[in-house]
Amino acid sequence: MDSIFSRIIRGEVPCHKVGEDDRFLAFLDINPVRVGHSLVIPKLEVDKFFDLPPDVLAGIMPFAQGVANRIAAVVPCNRIGVSVVGLEVPHAHMHLIPIDSIFDMDFSRTKLKMAQAELAALADRIRNA
Amino acid sequence: MDSIFSRIIRGEVPCHKVGEDDRFLAFLDINPVRVGHSLVIPKLEVDKFFDLPPDVLAGIMPFAQGVANRIAAVVPCNRIGVSVVGLEVPHAHMHLIPIDSIFDMDFSRTKLKMAQAELAALADRIRNA
Repeated sequence: MDSIFSRIIRGEVPCHKVGEDDRFLAFLDINPVRVGHSLVIPKLEVDKFFDLPPDVLAGIMPFAQGVANRIAAVVPCNRIGVSVVGLEVPHAHMHLIPIDSIFDMDFSRTKLKMAQAELAALADRIRNA
Repeated sequence: MDSIFSRIIRGEVPCHKVGEDDRFLAFLDINPVRVGHSLVIPKLEVDKFFDLPPDVLAGIMPFAQGVANRIAAVVPCNRIGVSVVGLEVPHAHMHLIPIDSIFDMDFSRTKLKMAQAELAALADRIRNA
């Protein structure tokens, strides 16, 4: 289904890109729970994560690994957590979140306010890490 | 590192198995946040999820897909959510959780109390779904 993510993939809506290949795109969440919080999406339009074809599911974690390693190189943290919920945007996506405690993955916490320039500079550092 | 999960893999500690192949094992979480909450682990002993070798990362989601589909066939829910945190047991693991709202993935909520017999019967239904 066409969603905000399809528009980001087509370049109609800008994003702060942190990774891309032929099948996947990763960009900073504009309402992060932690600095460095990113989204990984397949370019294929599928709503539910586990409805993705097995070959796309097989590719997403190795792709996310590269993104996670670059985030961790820039944002001090214990490790990178993963969350797939997907109840808001009908396009499968995975959150990558730098964590030091379980509370860093609590989506009900107040989101950080980051200016576009800050997000752009952070994405730049992560892409080049 | 040897952990409770290594002991489960070796069969020294029982589990309510919902899936297994040569590289992965899935079993019910004994402190579930929702009925059907399961853990997927690689048999390889690695602490941090994104330190797993790319071929294991490539295999885990297609394996989890089969488990998620079987859980969803037994437990009514909108979809199966995924969470990787890993701050408690030093062996990479992925939570699969039936969800209807974001709050179903809140690990701070009171865990369900399920008797061993209930867990055993549920695992049986999921394995055979």
